[in-house]
Amino acid sequence: MQLGMVGLGRMGANMVGRLLKQGHQCVVFDMSPQAVQQLTAESATGSTSLADLVAKLEKPRAVWLMVPAAVVDSTIAQVAPLLEPGDTLIDGGNSYYIDDIRRSKELASKGIRYIDVGTSGGVWGLERGYCMMIGGPNAEVQRLDPIFKTLAPGPGDIPRTPGRAEASGTSELGYLHCGESGAGHFVKMVHNGIEYGLMAAYAEGLGILRSANIGKTSGVIDAETTPLRNPEHYQYDFNLAEVAEVWRRGSVIASWLLDLTAAALIEDPALAKFQGRVSDSGEGRWTITAAIDEAVPAPVLTTALYERFSSRGDADFQNKLLSAMRYQFGGHLEK
Amino acid sequence: MQLGMVGLGRMGANMVGRLLKQGHQCVVFDMSPQAVQQLTAESATGSTSLADLVAKLEKPRAVWLMVPAAVVDSTIAQVAPLLEPGDTLIDGGNSYYIDDIRRSKELASKGIRYIDVGTSGGVWGLERGYCMMIGGPNAEVQRLDPIFKTLAPGPGDIPRTPGRAEASGTSELGYLHCGESGAGHFVKMVHNGIEYGLMAAYAEGLGILRSANIGKTSGVIDAETTPLRNPEHYQYDFNLAEVAEVWRRGSVIASWLLDLTAAALIEDPALAKFQGRVSDSGEGRWTITAAIDEAVPAPVLTTALYERFSSRGDADFQNKLLSAMRYQFGGHLEK
Amino acid sequence: MQLGMVGLGRMGANMVGRLLKQGHQCVVFDMSPQAVQQLTAESATGSTSLADLVAKLEKPRAVWLMVPAAVVDSTIAQVAPLLEPGDTLIDGGNSYYIDDIRRSKELASKGIRYIDVGTSGGVWGLERGYCMMIGGPNAEVQRLDPIFKTLAPGPGDIPRTPGRAEASGTSELGYLHCGESGAGHFVKMVHNGIEYGLMAAYAEGLGILRSANIGKTSGVIDAETTPLRNPEHYQYDFNLAEVAEVWRRGSVIASWLLDLTAAALIEDPALAKFQGRVSDSGEGRWTITAAIDEAVPAPVLTTALYERFSSRGDADFQNKLLSAMRYQFGGHLEK
Amino acid sequence: MQLGMVGLGRMGANMVGRLLKQGHQCVVFDMSPQAVQQLTAESATGSTSLADLVAKLEKPRAVWLMVPAAVVDSTIAQVAPLLEPGDTLIDGGNSYYIDDIRRSKELASKGIRYIDVGTSGGVWGLERGYCMMIGGPNAEVQRLDPIFKTLAPGPGDIPRTPGRAEASGTSELGYLHCGESGAGHFVKMVHNGIEYGLMAAYAEGLGILRSANIGKTSGVIDAETTPLRNPEHYQYDFNLAEVAEVWRRGSVIASWLLDLTAAALIEDPALAKFQGRVSDSGEGRWTITAAIDEAVPAPVLTTALYERFSSRGDADFQNKLLSAMRYQFGGHLEK
Repeated sequence: MQLGMVGLGRMGANMVGRLLKQGHQCVVFDMSPQAVQQLTAESATGSTSLADLVAKLEKPRAVWLMVPAAVVDSTIAQVAPLLEPGDTLIDGGNSYYIDDIRRSKELASKGIRYIDVGTSGGVWGLERGYCMMIGGPNAEVQRLDPIFKTLAPGPGDIPRTPGRAEASGTSELGYLHCGESGAGHFVKMVHNGIEYGLMAAYAEGLGILRSANIGKTSGVIDAETTPLRNPEHYQYDFNLAEVAEVWRRGSVIASWLLDLTAAALIEDPALAKFQGRVSDSGEGRWTITAAIDEAVPAPVLTTALYERFSSRGDADFQNKLLSAMRYQFGGHLEK
Repeated sequence: MQLGMVGLGRMGANMVGRLLKQGHQCVVFDMSPQAVQQLTAESATGSTSLADLVAKLEKPRAVWLMVPAAVVDSTIAQVAPLLEPGDTLIDGGNSYYIDDIRRSKELASKGIRYIDVGTSGGVWGLERGYCMMIGGPNAEVQRLDPIFKTLAPGPGDIPRTPGRAEASGTSELGYLHCGESGAGHFVKMVHNGIEYGLMAAYAEGLGILRSANIGKTSGVIDAETTPLRNPEHYQYDFNLAEVAEVWRRGSVIASWLLDLTAAALIEDPALAKFQGRVSDSGEGRWTITAAIDEAVPAPVLTTALYERFSSRGDADFQNKLLSAMRYQFGGHLEK
Repeated sequence: MQLGMVGLGRMGANMVGRLLKQGHQCVVFDMSPQAVQQLTAESATGSTSLADLVAKLEKPRAVWLMVPAAVVDSTIAQVAPLLEPGDTLIDGGNSYYIDDIRRSKELASKGIRYIDVGTSGGVWGLERGYCMMIGGPNAEVQRLDPIFKTLAPGPGDIPRTPGRAEASGTSELGYLHCGESGAGHFVKMVHNGIEYGLMAAYAEGLGILRSANIGKTSGVIDAETTPLRNPEHYQYDFNLAEVAEVWRRGSVIASWLLDLTAAALIEDPALAKFQGRVSDSGEGRWTITAAIDEAVPAPVLTTALYERFSSRGDADFQNKLLSAMRYQFGGHLEK
Repeated sequence: MQLGMVGLGRMGANMVGRLLKQGHQCVVFDMSPQAVQQLTAESATGSTSLADLVAKLEKPRAVWLMVPAAVVDSTIAQVAPLLEPGDTLIDGGNSYYIDDIRRSKELASKGIRYIDVGTSGGVWGLERGYCMMIGGPNAEVQRLDPIFKTLAPGPGDIPRTPGRAEASGTSELGYLHCGESGAGHFVKMVHNGIEYGLMAAYAEGLGILRSANIGKTSGVIDAETTPLRNPEHYQYDFNLAEVAEVWRRGSVIASWLLDLTAAALIEDPALAKFQGRVSDSGEGRWTITAAIDEAVPAPVLTTALYERFSSRGDADFQNKLLSAMRYQFGGHLEK
C-alpha cells in the first residue's frame, strides 16, 4: 500500500527501504533534498515540500512522521492543514503519550485520525525489523496493517511461547495494537524504563566482577578508610568479555542487551572510548512519573535512572554537602 | 570419559542423562535407590554407597557432587577420605565461593583437586544444555573438558558475537574456566545477582502497565490521599501477555527471562496461583556483600533483593514504625 | 493586625488561637457553626458565610485559607469575587506549588495578591509555633509580617547557628520568605520529601536492631532458603525504646523525629495498634517529580516513597510476577 | 574512680579531660610523649609504656583503649599479657562487633573482662558529652558506671520523652548497656548506618532546591536530551542557608545534622572547599551486611552508602558500560 514518510533520518530512511523492498509505495520528504534523492534512487517517490508530499498521496492518505520528538508538534502544525477528513497521521517517534492524547483530540476535531507508534530496535531495525507498539483508533490501525506487518520482524526463528494458541494476533509478528491514543507510546515508554533497569543490572554485575581483584591492591590505611577484612577473597582477574560470552549460552540472563555487551567488551575490554557520561532520553523519566502517579513502586527502574544522572555529575553538590557535614561533626577531611 | 555423579535430583539426573547420550560413562549414587535405578536403566553404572561409587571409578577419579548447598561439606567429609591423590572432586551446586576457597585448600593438602562449577539453566538444562562457570586448577579443568563440552549447550544457532575471532575459546560453547578456586561460583553468584535485577526490572515495568487504568477508578477523597491530578492519562487496559509477546520480537529488551514472562502471563494473566512471597537464594545476598567489600555501587541489584525481602513481610515492623511516627507528629491514623 | 481565617480544623483553629493570644484580631469562618462558635468564645469575630467574613474585614483585607488541598481551588472560586484589588489571599495548606503559580497569575489579573505558605509543625504547632515557608510578592509578605512573626516559634532556646550574623533575617524566628509565588510550597514540598527519607532511615535502622536476635531461631532448611552462616553473631535482644532514648542524648542522629520515635516505642514497643500501611501525601511524590525534571538524583527520597507504596500492597502484582518467573525457569514453588 | 586511658588523640584526650574535671583519676599513655605531657599538666598521671600504665593502676584495673580500629587487636595483644584476672579492658573505638565477640571470648579465657563502647558525638563530645552504647558483662558495666556517667551528656535540657517513668535507667543520661559483648558496637554500627541515611536525605533535598532554577537556563536541544517541559515551574533561586535555618525552627525535620548543615551553608553556600568525594567508614557497610543476613530490607541506608561509593568514582566502569551498550544498540554517542 501507499505511505507518505516525513523525516528521512536513519530510522525513517531504513523504514522506507524496508517498505519498498516488500513492494509498498512510498512518497518521501525531508528537509534535506539529498536524503530524498537517496530514496528516489530506490524507487521511492520524492517530494519537494509537505504540500507536494500530500498532493502525491492517494486518499485516504497515510502520513508517517519520523522526526525528532521536539519538532513533532510543529510538523503536525504544518501538515495537518494540508490533510483532509479521513486522512491518517502517524507519529513513529519518541513522543510522550500525553502529547498523543492531546494531538489525537485536536486532529479528530478536523476529521483526521492520529496513530502513535512506539518503535524499538534502533539501528538494527532495517535488518531485524521493528518491534512496534501502536495506539489509536482500531479502524485506522487495521487499515494500516500491511505497513505494520512489513516493518515488523515477523515470526522469524523465535520459538512460539508455550501455551499460546496458533496464529493468535499480531504480537507474534512483532507489532501490537495496544489500545487507544497514547497506548503505543505508553508501552514504549515503559519498555525503555525496563531497558534502563536491565542495562544497569548488567553494568553493576560486571562492575562487581571487574573489581574482584581488589584484594591484590594494598589498601590505604587511615582512619577514613575501612581495610578490606578478607583480601584473600578478592584475588580474581576475570575476563569480562569471556564471561559475557558464556552467559549468552544457555544461562538464565541471556538477552539481546547481553549480546551487545559481549560485543562491546570484545571490541575493547577497557571501554576506553567512553567516559561514562550516560544520557537519558525522556522515556525513562516519564516511566517514573507514571509509577508515582499510579503508586506502583519502581525502585529498580528509578535507581537506574538516577545512576545516569549521577554519571553526568548531577550529584556533585549533594556530595559536597555530605563532606561538609562530615567535616562539621567529626572534623573529617576529604581524601 | 568416566564421571562419578553423587546426587541424582532433577539437576544431577538430567546431567547424567545428557552425558550418557553422548557416550560418556557414569557411575552414579544417591540416597534414594530408586533414583539410582532410574539411571542404571539408561546405561549408567549404579552404586550402593559412596565407597562403592569410588571403587567403581578408574583413577584418577572424577567425582561430581550435585547435592543441596547445605550438605556439600558433609558429603565432602564422607567422600574425601575414600579418594586418593590425583583424584578430582567437582562441586556443581550453589556453593558460596568462599567455601570453595577453603575446601580447595583443605583438599589440596591431601592431593585431591577441587573444581567449583556454577551452573545456570535450571530445569531447561537437559534440553538446552548447561551454561557452566568453572573455577579451579587449570590442569584438572582441562582434563575434564570432554565432560564440560558435553554438558554445555554448544554453539547452537546463537549468532557469533561481532568482533570475536573464530573458535576462540570455550565460552562460545557455553562453558568457561573463569579462574582459580571459587572463580566459578563467584561468576555464578554475580550472574544470579544480575538475574534478580533483570527480573525486578520486568516486574516493575509490567506493574506500571497493569495499573495504567487507575484513572478509571474514582479515588478516595480524604486528607491522607493525594488525588490523581490527571485521571484522563491513566485509562489504558493493557493486555500484559500480548505486550510481553511483542517485546520478544525485535525489541531491545528481548531476553530469555522475557520469554518465560510471556509464557507465565499467557497461562494466567492474573497469576492467581502465586501469592507474591518471593524467595531469595544465597547468591543474591552474597553478590551484595561482594559489592560492598569492593566498594562498587550496586543499587539496582540490592534494591531487587530488598524487594524480595519485603514481599515476604520483612518490612512490616519498619512500616509500623513509620505509621507510629506519623501518628506522633500529625495525629495521622492509618487507613 | 487583622486576619480572616477560613477553615477552622485543627490547624486553622490552633493558628487563630495563637494569633488571638498575641492580640491580633481574627474574623473566622467554617462550614461548621460549632467550630466558629468555639473561637468566638475566645475573642474571635465569627462570620456566617464567606461574604460575611469578607464584609467584616478592613481593607486591604487578608484572608487566610486553611482548608484541605482538594478544596482550595473551589474555595478561592467562591471568595475571590468577594474581594477587591489590593486584598490578599493566603493559602496555608498543602497545595502543589504549580497550583500556586497558576492561582497567583489568575488572581493578579483581578488585582488580588496571593501568598503561599507551607507550614510544618503538625499538631505541635499551637504550643511550639509553626515553621513557615512563604512564597509570593514581597510587599504583601512584608505587610503580613506581624502575622507570620506571631505564628512562628520565634528564637526560643535553639542556639544560634555558628557563623550567622546577629539578627539576620526572619529564618531564625522560624519563618522565611523563600521567593516568588510557589516558593513557599516548593520548599515545604522538599521538606516533606526529606521527612520521608529521615523517617525511613530510622525505621530501617531500628528494624535491623529488632532482628538482631535472628540467630536464636533455628532457620528452616530447604533448597529455597539460605541458612544464616553465623547465627552466633545475631543473638541480641535489643530494647528499642531504650536505644532510641540514648540516641536522643548527644548522638549525631538526635532529631525531633527521633524524639517522636522514642515516645512511640516507650508507649508500646510492639507498635501493636499499627498495621504498617503507611500513607503518603502529595509532597513526597511531587518532590520526586521535581528531582526528575531537574535531573537531580534522589534515590534515598524516592526509595522512602516506594517503601510506603509497598507497605500498602502496591507491589503485590510485581511480586507474583517474580514468583511466576522463578517457577518458569527453576520449577521453584513459593513457600 | 580510676581509669587507664590508652590513646590520647582528639577523642581519648577529650575524654580524659572530661573525667579529670569531675574528679576521676586517670593514668594515661600514648605513643607520643607530648600527648601524655599535655594531660599530666591537667592532673592526669602519665606513663611511659603500657607496662608502666598497668603498674600504676589499682586492681581490679580498668583500661580504656581509644585507638584507631586498625590497631585495637595489636594493642590488646600487648596489653592483655600485662593484665590479671579481674581486670577490665574497654574498647571505645569503632570496632566491628564481630571482633568484640571474638575478643571477649579470648580475654575471658584469661579472666579478663572486655567491654565494647560505641561512642557518638565526635569533636563535640568534650563540650556536650558522649552518647555511649555499651556491650559486655553486666557486673563490669555496673562497676564502671561512674566513668560512663561522667563521660555521658547527662539529662541536660532535653525534655523527657512523654510516657517515660521518672529516672528510669541510664538512657536518659546518654549511656546504655545494650547487651552482651558486641552489643555496644552493634548499636553504634546501626546508628552510623542511620546517620548515612539521614545525611543523604538532607543532601538530596537541598540538591533539589538548589536546582530549582533550572528553568532559567536554556537547555541544549538535541536527540539525546529531553527538553524540560515546563521551565516556568523551575525559576526559583533559593537561599539554601536560610532554608536550612528556618527548618531548624519548629519543623518536623529539625535535627542536629540539620544544625550542622545550616552552619556549613552559612559559612559558604557554594561549599567550595569540598570536592564531594565522600568517605565511608566501616559501620555503614557492616550495617548493610547485617540487614542482608537478617533479611531486613534497608534500601534507604544502602542507597546512601552507594551514593558515597559513586561520589568517589567507583561507578565509572559501570557507566562506561552503559554508554557502550547505548552505542551498540542505537549508535548513541556520549555528550
